Amino acid sequence: MAEAETKRFDVIFEGVGRATGKMRNDITVRFDTMDETFELATDEGGFHGGDGTAPPPLALFTAALTGCIMTQIRAFSKRLKIPIGQVEVKARLHWEGTQVGREPYVTAPVGFDLDIDLDSEASEADQHRLLAAAKTGCFIEQTLAQGLQVGHRLKIGEAWQDA
Amino acid sequence: MAEAETKRFDVIFEGVGRATGKMRNDITVRFDTMDETFELATDEGGFHGGDGTAPPPLALFTAALTGCIMTQIRAFSKRLKIPIGQVEVKARLHWEGTQVGREPYVTAPVGFDLDIDLDSEASEADQHRLLAAAKTGCFIEQTLAQGLQVGHRLKIGEAWQDA
Repeated sequence: MAEAETKRFDVIFEGVGRATGKMRNDITVRFDTMDETFELATDEGGFHGGDGTAPPPLALFTAALTGCIMTQIRAFSKRLKIPIGQVEVKARLHWEGTQVGREPYVTAPVGFDLDIDLDSEASEADQHRLLAAAKTGCFIEQTLAQGLQVGHRLKIGEAWQDA
Repeated sequence: MAEAETKRFDVIFEGVGRATGKMRNDITVRFDTMDETFELATDEGGFHGGDGTAPPPLALFTAALTGCIMTQIRAFSKRLKIPIGQVEVKARLHWEGTQVGREPYVTAPVGFDLDIDLDSEASEADQHRLLAAAKTGCFIEQTLAQGLQVGHRLKIGEAWQDA
C-alpha cells in the first residue's frame, strides 16, 4: 500500500487593536490567506470602568472555544462519515484571580469544561472517535493543551525591545 | 507593617452553542457575576463550506487575546500610576495543521506575538513594569502560559460520558 501523503499548512491571523472608548478596544482582524478582514471590539461593563458597548474579551474567548470545537465536529463529521444532528455544546470556563492588597491581581485558569450533545444516531464508539478528531483539529484546544508563552515587544522611543 | 490582605475571586463564563447555518454557530455567553449576556456567532467562509455570516472562531480568539492584554494595560495603568497614551497592539497568531492523506488534520500553535506601543512618557522601567503586570493579569495569556486540558463529556443516549 502506498504511504499516504502528509501535507502541512499555516494558519495566521493578525490583529491591530486600538484603545478607543474608556475601556473599549477596536480590533481589526486579518486572515490574509482568505483575504478576509473582520472588525471586532471589546469593552467592559460599568463596574470595570467601561461603557458596555461590546462584549468583554473573555466572552469572545468563550465563543471562540465553543465555536472552534463545534466547527471541527461538523467539518470532520463529513470527512469521517459519522452523522450528527442538531449539535449543542455547553461550555463552562472558570478562572481565578488573586490580589494582594492594592497590587494588580494575578490570574490563573481553574478548569474549562465542554458538554457536547451530537444528537447523533451513530454508535457510541463513532461519536467518541468524531469528538477525538475534533479535539486534535481544534486550533484553540490544541493551543491550550500544549501551552504557549506569548512573545512581547514594547516600543520604547522609536525602538522595539523584547518584554 | 501589617501584612497586605490577600483576596481571591472567581471568574466564570458560560456558553451555550447551537449549530445553525451550514457552518454557523450561535453562542449565548453568560457572565453570571455581572448578570450580563452576550449573543455571539461564528461562521466560516465559502472555502470551508460556510456562508461568511460571522467571523471564524480564530478571529474571535485573536480579538479576545488582543483585547485582554489591552484592557489590563489600561486597568493597571491607573492602579500603578503609570500614564499611557493611545495604546496600539499588533498581534500575530500562527498555527499549523498537518494532514495525512484524507484524515482529519491535526493542529498545533507555532507562535503568538504581540507588539505593544503604549505611547507613554513613562520611563522604560515603568513601561516594562506595566506590561509585566498586564501579562500576569490577563486571563487568556495566563491560561496559554500554564496550559490546560479541556474536560469533555459526550451525551450518549440520556447519559453523560467522559470523552
